[in-house]
Amino acid sequence: MKKHNFNAGPAIMPRIAVENTASAILELNGSGMGLMEISHRSKDFQAIMDEAVALIKELLNVPEGYQVLFLGGGASMQFAMVAYNLLGKKAAYLETGVWAKKAIKEAKLFGEVVVVASSADKNFNFVPATYEVPADADYFHITTNNTIYGTELRTDPQSPVTMVADMSSDIFSRKVDVAKYGLIYAGAQKNAGPAGVTLVIVREDILGQVERVIPTMLDYRTHIKEGSMFNTPPCVPIFAVKETMKWVKSLGGVEAMEKRNLEKADLLYGAIDNSKMFMGTAEKDSRSLMNICFVMKPEYQEKEADFLAFAQSMGMIGLKGHRSVGGFRASCYNALDLESVQALVACMKEFEAANA
Amino acid sequence: MKKHNFNAGPAIMPRIAVENTASAILELNGSGMGLMEISHRSKDFQAIMDEAVALIKELLNVPEGYQVLFLGGGASMQFAMVAYNLLGKKAAYLETGVWAKKAIKEAKLFGEVVVVASSADKNFNFVPATYEVPADADYFHITTNNTIYGTELRTDPQSPVTMVADMSSDIFSRKVDVAKYGLIYAGAQKNAGPAGVTLVIVREDILGQVERVIPTMLDYRTHIKEGSMFNTPPCVPIFAVKETMKWVKSLGGVEAMEKRNLEKADLLYGAIDNSKMFMGTAEKDSRSLMNICFVMKPEYQEKEADFLAFAQSMGMIGLKGHRSVGGFRASCYNALDLESVQALVACMKEFEAANA
Repeated sequence: MKKHNFNAGPAIMPRIAVENTASAILELNGSGMGLMEISHRSKDFQAIMDEAVALIKELLNVPEGYQVLFLGGGASMQFAMVAYNLLGKKAAYLETGVWAKKAIKEAKLFGEVVVVASSADKNFNFVPATYEVPADADYFHITTNNTIYGTELRTDPQSPVTMVADMSSDIFSRKVDVAKYGLIYAGAQKNAGPAGVTLVIVREDILGQVERVIPTMLDYRTHIKEGSMFNTPPCVPIFAVKETMKWVKSLGGVEAMEKRNLEKADLLYGAIDNSKMFMGTAEKDSRSLMNICFVMKPEYQEKEADFLAFAQSMGMIGLKGHRSVGGFRASCYNALDLESVQALVACMKEFEAANA
Repeated sequence: MKKHNFNAGPAIMPRIAVENTASAILELNGSGMGLMEISHRSKDFQAIMDEAVALIKELLNVPEGYQVLFLGGGASMQFAMVAYNLLGKKAAYLETGVWAKKAIKEAKLFGEVVVVASSADKNFNFVPATYEVPADADYFHITTNNTIYGTELRTDPQSPVTMVADMSSDIFSRKVDVAKYGLIYAGAQKNAGPAGVTLVIVREDILGQVERVIPTMLDYRTHIKEGSMFNTPPCVPIFAVKETMKWVKSLGGVEAMEKRNLEKADLLYGAIDNSKMFMGTAEKDSRSLMNICFVMKPEYQEKEADFLAFAQSMGMIGLKGHRSVGGFRASCYNALDLESVQALVACMKEFEAANA
């Protein structure tokens, strides 16, 4: 039976990217060696790195003055790195979930943190829209998509100071005006590729403004200077990102992804909103296109496990909601086909017909 | 033509590990999903992580009280992490090459560093054997194998204080008495697997002794507490390490690797020492089994490029020495077969017969 992979991350990847990565691991470019066995200083790998960087610049229309980096350590490492490099005295953060809270926790080790707004009192089921960012903050940090709660900031906010965004779970899913940001980072394992590499897009002129001494590996300038090859980079994840970006481009780029994602989300949110049994958890104007969270209405609560079991029997994977929200979460990243959402909706309707 | 992969790292891997990784990427355990597309919290991935940790513990005979971690960011990140976590006032370092120097540079950001000995004045062509480690140092840091210069510390030194070792390029190549070390770290991309993950073996009771606040991701205790899954780990590199460790075990473990590596090194060093044309660069009692560095004797210097071209025409890859030593470097990691060293020796003899 065909599996429908709704995993929240690591998540479904384009099949062609998966196949090309497996093939490169067996042998790269007829070299007699696999992707894992060649020097990162070789022409073959340099070409992979260059193509990955060029594709990201093209897909996101990255302006002059910005650098695209591939770093190890995950987005969680960026929580500290951002503050290490950018927080002189004070930074502003928007608290929209557990990942934003973790970013705030690290920033507090380096200076004053102003939380401009929080949706904590509503279990993060919306993204605050009204707040004031202090004009003397070094930067304003947002988390554009909140995987656990299914909320998303789908338009670039305004900010009087440099904006820093964790786009781990919605990068490449929609158009973004990179010029509005000083720094964007994203763990690859949702829309960009597999786990093991983090993308950073940084405007060079925001660096070098803080007084503190920064350990070499935590200083963005180290990686800019060496083209993400100060040390051996995560070669396989970078290759898989490159293949994923090629696929995004082949389908028409980020605008085509946005159209595709809207179509999937409209179908699924429509089914949820028209259901007797299911209901969404996020406020409508904060709804994420990437992670669609829903629960059983109170009167059907006891059917939750039954539905999960039924959905699983129909080939649905990864539908269980995060424990802090409960219910169900259908992650609909770029690589998920409309067909999978159609299958899920059919599954919901069939279950509802039999049980409501 | 068969390629003989003498790359210094990323480097040759066991073919079975390469094939099994490619296969898992296409589909893992008949799940209908690939290794890059499953949750790191899934039973399937937890089993991979558990097996990788268990194999490392078994192969290195890791005593009670130690933890095995898989971290992102490369061994270069460990230069800072070691000092962040362990350097209270003073640390001792043995300076045996460029990587040791980089570790020293980061440690100096955190406290006093005593360089107990250095072979810098001889272009690091030996590992100093006589030095005194201050009894009040927080730890003594060594680099067991120096990839660029072809030197290796093949027996565990004595130290009056906790010993920390960068074993990036010779871990699993020989028996090590882990109990003599407080912390061992190793980038995977030589003997343990592909680039993108770093192994850390740490004795828990040495942690938590420093006063400073440590960013969450840089604190070893974070990763111990969460079993290397505080954040999404580099899943593909960890899988490939697990497959590499299975291969090491299947051949008889680390002792069998040591025997295999001695056999290869004896053959190649023998050919170098008996040659009219070539000569080794490292002092004999510091010679590495992993990276065998040699040059043309002065009278044949102008033949260097010719030999490299000839060797390449015979299928030899990665033989060019690092620019700071020149000449040639044959990296003979665990996965390199004796057959490849035999082919190299035949190639050297053929070239010598025609040119000496």
